[in-house]
This record gives sequence, C-alpha cells and structure tokens, in this order.
Amino acid sequence: MSGVPHKQVFAFQEGHAQMLHLLGGKGANLAEMVRLGLPVPPGFTVTTEACRDFYEQGGMTSEDLRAQISTALKQLEIEKGQHFGDSRNPLLVSVRSGSVTSMPGMMDTVLNLGLNDETVQGLANHTHNPRFAYDCYRRFIQMYGNVVLNIEAYHFERLLHELKQQEGTELDQSISVEGWKRLIASYKECILQKTKRVFPQDVNEQLFLAVEAVFRSWHNPRAQIYRRVHHIPDHQGTAVNIQSMVFGNMGDDSGTGVIFSRNPSNGENVLFGEYLVNAQGEDVVAGVRTPMPIATLASEMPAVYDHLFSVAKQLERHYKDMQDIEFTVENGKLYLLQTRNGKRNAQAALKIAVDLVSEGSISKEDSLRRIEVGHLDQLLHRGMDESKIKQVLATGLPASPGAATGQVVFDADTAVEWNRMGKPVILARQETTPEDIHGMIASEGVLTSRGGMTSHAAVVARGMGTPCICGCEGIQFTDQEKSMQIAGVVLKEGDWITLDGTTGRVIAGKVPLREAEMTPELTQMLAWADEIRTLQVYTNADNPKDAETARRFGAEGIGLCRTEHMFFAPERLPVVQQMILADNIDDRNRALKLLLPMQQADFEGIFRIMAGLPVTIRLLDPPLHEFLPNLEELLRQVSQLNDEDPETPAKKKELQVLIRKVRLLHETNPMLGQRGCRLGIVYPEIYDMQIEAVFRAADTCMEEGIDVRPELMVPLVGHAAELQLIRERIEDIAKRILGPEKSGLLAYKVGTMIEVPRAALTAKQIVEHADFFSFGTNDLTQMTFGYSRDDAEGKFLTRYIDQKLLPYNPFQVLDTDGVGQLIDLAVAGGRAVKPALKTGICGEHGGDKASILFCQRTGLNYVSCSPFRVPLARIAAAQARLEVGVAAERTPAAVL
Amino acid sequence: MSGVPHKQVFAFQEGHAQMLHLLGGKGANLAEMVRLGLPVPPGFTVTTEACRDFYEQGGMTSEDLRAQISTALKQLEIEKGQHFGDSRNPLLVSVRSGSVTSMPGMMDTVLNLGLNDETVQGLANHTHNPRFAYDCYRRFIQMYGNVVLNIEAYHFERLLHELKQQEGTELDQSISVEGWKRLIASYKECILQKTKRVFPQDVNEQLFLAVEAVFRSWHNPRAQIYRRVHHIPDHQGTAVNIQSMVFGNMGDDSGTGVIFSRNPSNGENVLFGEYLVNAQGEDVVAGVRTPMPIATLASEMPAVYDHLFSVAKQLERHYKDMQDIEFTVENGKLYLLQTRNGKRNAQAALKIAVDLVSEGSISKEDSLRRIEVGHLDQLLHRGMDESKIKQVLATGLPASPGAATGQVVFDADTAVEWNRMGKPVILARQETTPEDIHGMIASEGVLTSRGGMTSHAAVVARGMGTPCICGCEGIQFTDQEKSMQIAGVVLKEGDWITLDGTTGRVIAGKVPLREAEMTPELTQMLAWADEIRTLQVYTNADNPKDAETARRFGAEGIGLCRTEHMFFAPERLPVVQQMILADNIDDRNRALKLLLPMQQADFEGIFRIMAGLPVTIRLLDPPLHEFLPNLEELLRQVSQLNDEDPETPAKKKELQVLIRKVRLLHETNPMLGQRGCRLGIVYPEIYDMQIEAVFRAADTCMEEGIDVRPELMVPLVGHAAELQLIRERIEDIAKRILGPEKSGLLAYKVGTMIEVPRAALTAKQIVEHADFFSFGTNDLTQMTFGYSRDDAEGKFLTRYIDQKLLPYNPFQVLDTDGVGQLIDLAVAGGRAVKPALKTGICGEHGGDKASILFCQRTGLNYVSCSPFRVPLARIAAAQARLEVGVAAERTPAAVL
Repeated sequence: MSGVPHKQVFAFQEGHAQMLHLLGGKGANLAEMVRLGLPVPPGFTVTTEACRDFYEQGGMTSEDLRAQISTALKQLEIEKGQHFGDSRNPLLVSVRSGSVTSMPGMMDTVLNLGLNDETVQGLANHTHNPRFAYDCYRRFIQMYGNVVLNIEAYHFERLLHELKQQEGTELDQSISVEGWKRLIASYKECILQKTKRVFPQDVNEQLFLAVEAVFRSWHNPRAQIYRRVHHIPDHQGTAVNIQSMVFGNMGDDSGTGVIFSRNPSNGENVLFGEYLVNAQGEDVVAGVRTPMPIATLASEMPAVYDHLFSVAKQLERHYKDMQDIEFTVENGKLYLLQTRNGKRNAQAALKIAVDLVSEGSISKEDSLRRIEVGHLDQLLHRGMDESKIKQVLATGLPASPGAATGQVVFDADTAVEWNRMGKPVILARQETTPEDIHGMIASEGVLTSRGGMTSHAAVVARGMGTPCICGCEGIQFTDQEKSMQIAGVVLKEGDWITLDGTTGRVIAGKVPLREAEMTPELTQMLAWADEIRTLQVYTNADNPKDAETARRFGAEGIGLCRTEHMFFAPERLPVVQQMILADNIDDRNRALKLLLPMQQADFEGIFRIMAGLPVTIRLLDPPLHEFLPNLEELLRQVSQLNDEDPETPAKKKELQVLIRKVRLLHETNPMLGQRGCRLGIVYPEIYDMQIEAVFRAADTCMEEGIDVRPELMVPLVGHAAELQLIRERIEDIAKRILGPEKSGLLAYKVGTMIEVPRAALTAKQIVEHADFFSFGTNDLTQMTFGYSRDDAEGKFLTRYIDQKLLPYNPFQVLDTDGVGQLIDLAVAGGRAVKPALKTGICGEHGGDKASILFCQRTGLNYVSCSPFRVPLARIAAAQARLEVGVAAERTPAAVL
Repeated sequence: MSGVPHKQVFAFQEGHAQMLHLLGGKGANLAEMVRLGLPVPPGFTVTTEACRDFYEQGGMTSEDLRAQISTALKQLEIEKGQHFGDSRNPLLVSVRSGSVTSMPGMMDTVLNLGLNDETVQGLANHTHNPRFAYDCYRRFIQMYGNVVLNIEAYHFERLLHELKQQEGTELDQSISVEGWKRLIASYKECILQKTKRVFPQDVNEQLFLAVEAVFRSWHNPRAQIYRRVHHIPDHQGTAVNIQSMVFGNMGDDSGTGVIFSRNPSNGENVLFGEYLVNAQGEDVVAGVRTPMPIATLASEMPAVYDHLFSVAKQLERHYKDMQDIEFTVENGKLYLLQTRNGKRNAQAALKIAVDLVSEGSISKEDSLRRIEVGHLDQLLHRGMDESKIKQVLATGLPASPGAATGQVVFDADTAVEWNRMGKPVILARQETTPEDIHGMIASEGVLTSRGGMTSHAAVVARGMGTPCICGCEGIQFTDQEKSMQIAGVVLKEGDWITLDGTTGRVIAGKVPLREAEMTPELTQMLAWADEIRTLQVYTNADNPKDAETARRFGAEGIGLCRTEHMFFAPERLPVVQQMILADNIDDRNRALKLLLPMQQADFEGIFRIMAGLPVTIRLLDPPLHEFLPNLEELLRQVSQLNDEDPETPAKKKELQVLIRKVRLLHETNPMLGQRGCRLGIVYPEIYDMQIEAVFRAADTCMEEGIDVRPELMVPLVGHAAELQLIRERIEDIAKRILGPEKSGLLAYKVGTMIEVPRAALTAKQIVEHADFFSFGTNDLTQMTFGYSRDDAEGKFLTRYIDQKLLPYNPFQVLDTDGVGQLIDLAVAGGRAVKPALKTGICGEHGGDKASILFCQRTGLNYVSCSPFRVPLARIAAAQARLEVGVAAERTPAAVL
C-alpha cells in the first residue's frame, strides 16, 4: 500500500459491470443495474482490494477505509432521506459478500443492520408495524450473533423453538410482538453468556464489525474448499456490499424470491423460479417455509410479475445470457437485489446457447465459447431416473461416466458367460488386469475397490465408454463365497446393482436408466464447431465397434489403434502366451503364424469402417510379461498342488516353466523396460507379423474397392536409428505383400509416437524417417515428471495437488511448462526439416479442453481421444481456435 | 567419382606424414622417413581413396588405377635399376596394407612378389644364392596362396612339415635348394587342386590381384571386429604400400626386427626390441624361431646397431614420441620398413610423457593430451603377479577394477564375521542387494553370477573401489551346502579365490598381489593437470573413509553424499525398518529420534575430514521399500513355518505385518515412484530429522573450530514448488538449531539434483530456490531415454549397441544429443536468472572422459566421481580444457 489512500468504496452509481475484479460479481452487477435505471435499493461496495489489504494488515481494517465507508454512508443517508442509527426513521442496511467468481452461499451476510433497542422503536413507529420491526430486530441479532460473534446458529434456533412452543405455533408469522421482544431478550442473554460482552448498540460498531466478518468469511473452511475445487485463487478476496434494506417481510403485499430468465433444467424460454410472501431472503434459504412457483405471482400481483418479467428480459438482453435474479417486493414495489448469469445443466446450457443465436442475441462463436465442455459429458452417456434410487451403498471415484444397471459378478469369465445368456452384468473386482478385458467388454459397468482415476479399470472403461467406479474402498470381497459387502449389505453373485459412473455412486438394486441422445441442439452446436475449428479430431479405437461409435460421433480418423488389446481376447491369449513362451524362433514363428490371420481380420474390420479416413496402427507396445499370469499367483498355485494327485508332477512342471519365464521377463521398472519398439527390435518376428497383417488386410480391402489409409506408428522411439530400422522393415514387407504395383497405389504412412523425452529433444533426427509425429502424452508426462502413474496417483500425487505443489493432475491436464515445452521443441524440430509434418496427440489429454487449447496454440494437426469424447473434442477444438485467434495461428506454412 | 582421374598412387618421395588420411599410417610415415633422408627401400602407396572406390565399384579396380600403378612401377624400376618380371635381375616388391588408424596384424601382406619360374632363376643367378632365391619363391607362393587365393595356411604348413621330415630337419635354414624346389612343386599342385587354376606366372597379374586382396582384407572378420571394438569407422578403407624388397634372409649378415625407442612396459629411455638373423618379417610373427634381444645386435653388428640407435633417436625427436620401428638388415646394410608411435602400458605412457617434457621435446600440455585416461585406471588399483596364476576358472564382466584375493563366503553376515576375525574374504552371491552392503564393505572383492556393469554390486563396488566381477554366468550356487561350482570345480566356504576386476578373470587359489602406487610421474602429471584445468573435481563419498581416500586423491569437495547408505548399516537397518513400519507419526518420530544422533555422527566425521571444502549432502532418495525385506522371501518364510512350534503364531503375525507393509509400499515402477523429495514431502519428519542432523553436526564442528561447508541437496525435484517448500523447512531448522547468530556465520547452501527432465525444462523457475544445480545424470539418462538401468542393460541395450542403434552405452558415456541438450537448457535457464549459479554433475558420468569434455563445453563448475576416479577426472578435466580451448569457454561471466 502506498501512502496515498486508494478509493476502496464505490457507490453503486459509480460502478459498472466491467469493474468485476474490484467490486466482485454482486457489486458490479448492482452498479450495472443502477446504470440501466432498474429499481435497486441504493448502496455502495467496499472493494476486493480493501479485503486484500485487510489480510495484509493482519486482519485489521484501516482508519482510512472506515472513513471512506462513513462518507459513503452519509451519501446513502442523503439519498434515502434517512439516518443510520436514527431513533425515529432509522436507515437499515444489509452487509453482503460478493466475490469475483460466484461462490454461492459460501460466505456470510448480515441483514437489518442498524437496529438497536432505540432504532427498533423508531422502525416500529415509522412503519406502524411493531411486529415487523421486532421481527427484523430478532433476525438481525440472530444473524449478527452467528456471523459476527461466531455463536453457533443452533443456540438461537433452540430459543426460537422454545418461544414457538410457548406461543403454541409453528409459524414465525404467528408470533406476537411480545413474543419477539422476549426472544430478543433471551438472544441478548445468550450473547452475553457466550461472548462475555453485551450485544453492541452502537450502529457504527455493528457496521464495521460486520464488514470485517464478511472479509473473514473469505477464509472460512467451506469457502476454502469451494475455491480449491473450482480453482479460484485464494488471493482474490471478496468485496462487501452495503445496501439499504428493503423488506419482504412487511406483510402480504411483500415478499422475496429468485427467478431465472429461462428454465435452467431444460433451457426452455419461460420465467422460472419461486418466491415467498412476507419473508426475508434467508427464509428461502433456510427452507422453513415452502416457496411458491413464480407463476403464482402472475395471478397474485400481476403488475409486479409483469415488471419482473420485463426486467428479466431486459437483463437477459443486456447480459446476452440467462439471468439468475434475486428480488424483493416491499409493499407491492419490486426491488432487484442481485443478477448474475444463471447456472444451468448441460442440456439447458446447450439449448440456451443455440436459442440465443437464433434469437439474434449472440453469434455462433459466442454461443460456442459458452459451452462448458466438461458438462457435456453427462449428455453423452446414459443417465438414471434419480427418483427411483432407494439406497446409495457407497461412493467411489467417478472413473468413467454414465449409468449402468445389472447383476453383479466377481470374475471376468462369469461376466462373459452370463452376458452370452443375455443377462446384463456388472463386473466387481478388487482391481482389474489386462486378463479381465473380455469380462469388461461383456459388462454393463465395472466396479473396483482399489485403484485411482487412471487405474487399468478406469482407463479401459473410459476407452470403451463403459461406466466405471474405481477405488470404492468400502467394499470387502469374500472370494470363496462369491460375494461382497458394502456398508453392511452383503451382495451375492447375481444380485442387482446400479452404478452411476458420473458421480461415483454405487446404488442398491435396479434403477431405470434413460438413454443418451444427440439432441438437435448438440447437433447444431457440433455443426458450428466443425465450421470453426482447424484441429482435426481423431479417435482412439482398437476394434470395429469403437471405430463405428467414434465415426458416428464425427471422428475423422483413428489416431491410436492399440494392437495389444487384440492380443488379450480370450481365444487369442493362449496363442500369444505360446508365442512368448517359445524357447526358439521356430516355435515363436509357429505361434505368430496362428496370430497373423486374426490380426489381419481385425485390421480388415477397422479399415472397412474407416474407409477414406486414416487409421493409425500402433505396433505392439506393452512388455511381454503383461500377457503372462502373475508370479505370486503362480507360486500360490504350485504350493497348493496336491501331492497325491497323479497329475501333479505334470502340472507342476508346466507351472515351473511358466514361473521361469515370468521371472525371466520380470522387470524392476516395466514402464522403462523392454517394450515398444525395443520389443520389435529384439523380437523382429513379432513386429513383422503385425506389419504383414496390416498390409494383407489393406490388400484385401483394396480388392473390395475400399479406400484404405493405414498409418503405421512405431512406439517408444528414443533414437532415430530405431525408427530407421523399423521403417525399412515396413517398406520391405509392404513391397513383398503388395508387389511393386499395388504398393505404389497404397498411400500408407510410417510415423512414430513421441513419448520419450529424448525423442522430443532429437526430433530433427527422428523426423528424417517419420511421416507423422503422434505425441503420446501419457508416457511423455510419466517420463518428463518421473511419475509412474500406477504409483503416483495413489501416493504422493494427491498430496501434491492438495498442498498446491502442483496446480492440477498432469495426467488429466497437460503440463504446458514441462511436457508442453518438449512438444513445442519436437514440433519445431520436426517442421524445421519437414514443414508439412503431420502432428497430433493421442492419450487422455486428447479429450481435455485445456490440453486441446495447447494443441491449437502449438499448431498440431489433430487430437485423438476416446470415441465418447469425440463430440466434446470437436467443441473444445472450436473454442480453442476462437481463443487462440486466427491471426496467432501457427500453421505449417507460417512456420516456414 | 568424377570423370577426371584422381591421383591415387603416390611415390614415397611425393608424400609426407600429414597425408595420413590418404596414404594410411604406414605409407605416410614411409614417405616422411624418405623426406628425412633415412634408408627406406623405394616404393609407392595406393591411396585409401582408391580402396573406397574399389568398394563403390563393387570390388573392382579401375583401369585408371592399374595404369597409375604401372606408371609408378616404371618409376620404381628406374630408381632400382631393376625390371619387374626380368628373368635376369628381377625387381621384387612387398604389398602391404596400411590403414589410417593402426590395426596391427588385422590385414594382409604379400612379400617377394614378382617371382615366377623364370625370375626365380634370375634372382638365384644374380645373388649367387639359389637357396635364398628358392626360399623366397616358396615363401611368396605360400603367402600369395593364402592371402590372394584364400587357401587355408595349414595346407602349406603341412607340406612344409612333410618336407622337413623328409629332409630330417626342424630348421628352414637347413633345407636344401632341391628341397625348396620340391616344396614349390607341391605348393603349385596344392593351388591347382584347391583353385582349379595354375599359380599365375604373369607378374602384373600377381601384383593387381595382390592389391585387390589387400583392399578386400579391410573387410575380413577380424578387421571388422577390431574396428568395432576400437570405434574405427568402416568407410575409412586401407591404403596399399608397394615397396621394393630388401632381404633379411640373405645370410648371417642379414636379419629383420622390431624395436621401440624406449621400453614400452615401463617407459625407461633405452632401446628395446628384438631381431632374427637370416629371416624375413613373417618369421618373427610366426614365432617359429625365437628372436634375440636387440642388445645382442650391438655386439654382433655394432655399426648396424649404432645406425639403428641414432635413427631411433632421430625419429623420436622428429615425431616427439616413442617410436615402434620395423627394420631389415640386408648384407650388413640397414633398411627401415615402418615407423609409428609405439603402444605402451599406462605406467610407460606416463613416464614417457613426463620424460619428454623434461627433455624439452614436448610441452606439458602435449604431455597431458597424450594420456589415455582409461588406461590410468590400472595404475590406481592393485594388480597381481601374472606369473603366479594357475587356473582361470571363468571370466565375468570387469565391473570394478583391481585385484583381490581372499577366502570365499556366500553371505554378507559371514563376510563381516570373518573380516572381524582378520580373514580376507571374497563375497560371492547370485546378485547383491542393499542388504548386503555391510558384507561388501567387509570384503576384499565381490563376485556375482547375475547382473551387468551397472547392477547393484557393480555400482556399489566401483564406488568403494572394491574389485568386483559381475554376471559371471558359469557359476552355480548350492545354497544349502554353502558352495559354488565353476567350470567343474567346487568351491566351499573358506576356499581361496582371486578376482581380477580389471579383466573379469576369476582365478583359483591365492595369487600374490602388488599394491597400487602414486608414482612420481603420476604426481607430476596431476600437478600439471591442476595448473591447466578449470573444472573442479569433487567426489562421491558416503562415509569418512571414502572422503579421506578421495581427499588424498585430490578431491576438492564432496559432490554427492548419499545419506541412504548410512541407513543400511546393520545396526541401523532395524531402526530404519521400525521407522518405516510405524503406523502413526509418534512411533515414527520415536524411531527417527534414535536415528538422529547416528546421522549427526556420520556428518561430523565427514565434516572433519572435508574441513574447508564443500560437502554436498543429498537428503534421503530411495523408495522406502528398499529398506524392507523382499516379498517373495517373506512369503516363503511364512509357508515354511512349522505349525507345531509354539512360537509360530507370534512369528506368523509379525511376518504378516511386514508383508502387509511391503505390499502397501510396493510400486510398479519404483524408479518413478515415491522417492526423493516426494518422500520428504509425504513424510516431512524424515527429512526434518536429516536436516536437523546436518545442522547439529555443523554446530559441533564449528565449536571445534572446523570450517564447515554443508550444501544440502534435494533430490528428484520436478517442480519449483517442491524445492521452495523444502528450502523453507531447511532454513527454519537451521535457524532453530544454530540460533540467529551462528546461522549467519554458517555459509550453507541449498540446491537440487537436476535429474528429472521436467526440472531441466523448468530450470528458470527452480533456480529461484536453488544455490546450485547438480546434474544427476544417471537418473536423467534413465528418464530421458525411458530406460530402466536395471532392465535395459540385461535386455535390449546390449543388442542396441551391437546393432549400432546406439553409438555407446549412455550410462557410461553421456548422451550429448538428448541428455546433454537438457543439461544445456538447464544451465542456460539457471544462469539466465542467477549468472553465478554453481553447477556440476555427479553419477557415473563424472569420471568419464567424454562426459567431462561435455561438462567443460557446457561450462559446469565441477564434476563429482567415485574416490578412485578422482585422479583420472583431474587429468580428463585438464584435457577437456585443452580441447575446448580457453577462448571457447563459457564462464558464468561470459553467459551474461
């Protein structure tokens, strides 16, 4: 703070909507409404800067601030023709918080401030309504006692309850003046007991302490948590609005309410909301009385309703968005106490955004900007009929959104079997492994008791669009009996259960579901997005079914087809294991020969569906031991063999061969071990089989007249020589399979994942052998941070985010400072040599809004995400284009 | 090749020593000797370019080259006054290879070329020595048959052997003319049978085919292997030298030999070498007759000896280095056939380099440049008396150099126990783990049957300077019987065994050792190095003993003190485990309280030894599970409990607690898991104890008047916020322990390891909280490449290096393209904010010559390496300074 005092208090008529950061949302909008000539009770705002000073000065308000408040108050007195603390016609004010970003209900408010034993009589006399005046006074003491003096609310509620019992009534309105006076006396007594101080009669003391209390409420625990969840910076601070009171509790021609200018649940263009007759704002919040729908106001006070309606429309036109408006009616006159852009659900948001465009209120660009991509998720998955939920058993991590209902099973094989019989199943496991894949495919939903948002179950389920709840720690499995226990309830195999993957709720029994739908509004919005965006949207799909879903959702290619998922199919896994267990190349080749036609069929299926679009096929990536059983499990099996069984020696030998191989393939850090192209170099025959399958499939499809565009992607390249070697093999095999003529006709590409930091750093060398770069941001994030996802999320990462050491989970939101810098280096390096190099990202980040924005900035050509995120990515890509702006774009040509 | 013919043949008088790349080493030096007026038989050289052309043309010599050779031959005929193919006085030539980099014995040579059935008679007549002439002819056919016609040498040797039997003699000299003639006939018959062609009588055909054969020998298997081992590029090619013959086999006044101008075994300034009377060069190589020491020549042919001596001195002065000279004496006249810088062992190299400086022949800079740092290694470790070796049992990887002899034991506890009893022990294990450390410390040497050059055993042993052989696969352990079997020999506990860690040999029995010594020459060379180098040399030392060794070797500080090694001491491990197993913070603090004085004592010991020098202490780094027993082992223990033992239930419970914790701490990729500062953030109490111990120790030592310079190093930082948090804690604890006054007096530093790629990328942010950066190149290499050392070296990495996908093992030689780029980025980022930022590297690369060169180029302040590599690093640092040059240096000031 410099020596010259800042202006830290602004009368409403001095402000406007653009002063949001200084005046907070409420203050700025009150000022704006005053500018628009709308009926707003006069008042002034203490700025967020004053709040920040308050904290800098160790929780003290400065003399200067007090002087500025007093001056503003004088001005208010003149405007209102009333005096603060006047024993005849006292000025009363509300003191309300108002942060820059809306934090509804998180901070404190004091109403009816300015009342004391004297002024309450003045109010009673002046209004000729002593019951009203003493009602206000007891309300004031109650709120003040709670908010400013920190006395728990229940003390006052108990006293009020006792009074009502004495008076023999349930309703506030039935309490007599004498009753309120008695209550006021016991409230004061309570305050004296709790704080050892008399309730302050000095109205200025009341005011300054209330302002400080609002400042302090910025740091109350619920506000802190809210800010953390919503990424609101702690240093922002809150403004304080001091506004002359209007009274909704003046009688039956008074009231208070909240309206939305459109329906926030479905977006319909009708006034929506509710109000309470003869009440102050906190009565609505407290829920003591049930408010009436706003439509009733039309019949009860039609003039007020019409006024409200026209004000709502005026504000909506002015702000170009649906408004959420607080109002009070005092003796038949409408006053506006707040307006802001209203919260809405995804469907409403879409409809409103589209409608505002057709109404000519906003452009389609603005309409797109307003879509919260994250919220769209719920639209694209099945939901459930909330009213039919009987019991929520537990809540886990919402790992893959959507609702699912089915009969619970505890192993993958049963899931498959029951699914074949037509039963919908939910697979519940401690955690899933690649060997459970067939069971996951057969299930409606997946539930695990261990693992985080990026555990195997979570990643696979999201990829498949299967609802999934992970890390639901309340579950205990009893393997032998095929049952599990949650919250004291025992569920046996076959019991019905419902999962809400969007919220993480595990629900008892069968709950009716409703299907996801591509609404006309969503279709319209996507069409606009496609007009605007320059980033292409590909999908990650490993099978024809996913490819079809993605294409329906508008995917423009496959950015990542993981061939290993094809290896896990139950009828193939034994052949894959045979291939791995082979002690010599001949045995391995025999197994590979069996796999070849299977892989070829996979690729043919995908090529047919993706006709005319690129299909990026990643050669085998995971370490081979992932295809073999777990060592501990094998050791257990050996120890449990019955020595008397004549088959034991043979079984034992078989198991020991497996154990030996599992040990041999064991790696201390498999993430950094023999996987990706390292496999393809050490066991060239495996990659050769895959490459051959790609070109055989391409050949077959070309014969069928299909436009095939395979792009072979080599994973985990860290040195140009690796890619060079494998590229040569690809080219040789292409020539061998297709012959010289056809291999000229098939415009296939060869590229690499950039997922090892060294690959990004040496992009200039690597690009010599690459037609495209696909950033594998999952692995690149792991290696750039040195975080193993499997280990970090359960252990230190959560702690890091809690302690704000990291702003967010880098596996969900791309780390632009570190990982992004490597991507920038790689794109620059690659395009320095090949200006038209095709670049994109695949992995979880491909569907994340902030990460898509980064991709746009860096000038990538495409993002690739799971099928169900394709529509979201299309919108996010359009938003990114709008944010980055056309001028700032780095197109390949611009890089030249 | 352009249309204009290149000059590809140079007469000796046309060349000089600087034409090395065109003429090869032999050709360039022959030309140089001609320029010096020394007695060299005239001849000419076909260039390496001609060889490259030969390969480009698919193994054909061009017409043009043949013409150039013929022209040169004409000139030679004039010079010699002889004619090639002349039946009266024929010119004979030798045809010898000569590559740019010396590849002794790797390629082929043909002598006596130009002989046929006619010219042999001419030679006999002209020399009046038919025995000599026919000896030459049979030698020629033999070499030609072998080298040019590819007939295995043993065919000829068998025929020669048969002849000797017929003639009843063992000696070539005793064979009669008739005998040679019969042998020539059978040689020709043999060639006809094997090649179906008659031995060529056309001398020009002989010559051209011999030149081609020499070209082809560039690609023979042994030459290829030699080049791979010595990193000689394949495309270089060999020159061919065609030189008129002189004959050492003309009688007893003739001979041939090789001398060194100094003793290549110890560097003494005396003529050293040997010669054979009445012999040609290949007789020396073949080892049929035993040559005589060169000193004998002084008495037998004093004039020749004197001439040879003065020539040797002249050449040494001219080349400013010890020379390796081939000579022939023909009828009492000396001819020189080759000179080159002689190979020598480390001790000789040092002595010669130092002597040449004192003789005023070279500068100390040149002297330093000539030291092969890698060779010095042998000087700094114990060696053995090679003559006392009886049986080499097996050869493993030479993981840590030096010789060790002792009684073999198979577990760490026995090693410690026997060592206490004064027995020297060799610890033999399948592989070592951190729990074996105390046993390794107690052992003279370590032998493992598994693991590579960077396995636990290898890294720890190198750090301690303990000889170690790893991955000796021939060993089979029989745990129960405390014995092992190598090469059929069974060794029981207590049997004597000797290890040669420099070569990897495992030797039966006790072999006498000789101590390492700091020779006066090494001391002198190190003094020169210290004058020249700008890079400081620190050491990695975890205990006072290592610190003392390093200081004796000239370390200027400790660059890496790994506190975890202190935790593994056998009396501490149980306390450390207690700390880890603690279920609550109170229990953990109790254990930490026990550890605090131990850590404090460690630091005091180190501070006292390193008085006045910086001591960089790295806070705890490895994941906690490294301090707990192995899961599989625990499971085995549980399964082996005897149910009838009354103590079993208690033991079982204890084991199960351990198993639960081990499982809880288990990580899929521990390398990328909860370690380094992540530990210090999740369990702040552990780091706090360590920090407290550092400052308590500093306090005690300051009281003793010792100059203490602690530098606390935070490992595995990936985000500035991590370092900020821990730095604040360090500063708080320093103030608390030292009090305000003393904490001002102690100039401690806080810095970080840069070992996570993200740290290098965000150095600008991290440096805000760092006084120094220490590049942890081991981990940085792991994460930049995505290679887990534990997994890579045994699996794909060897394959990669074999296939030349990588030029070298990046864990041994710093990868400047990738990892180096990150270091450059980090140094630039750090110094942009703090121009005087202290930077260095620790880890294996700190002792590697090429990596030290990189550090000099990048402008680091220090390198840190294991104590035994400190002298090497001092020399390498001086060499790096000389190579980079003073002008090119990037000092901190220059960065400004």
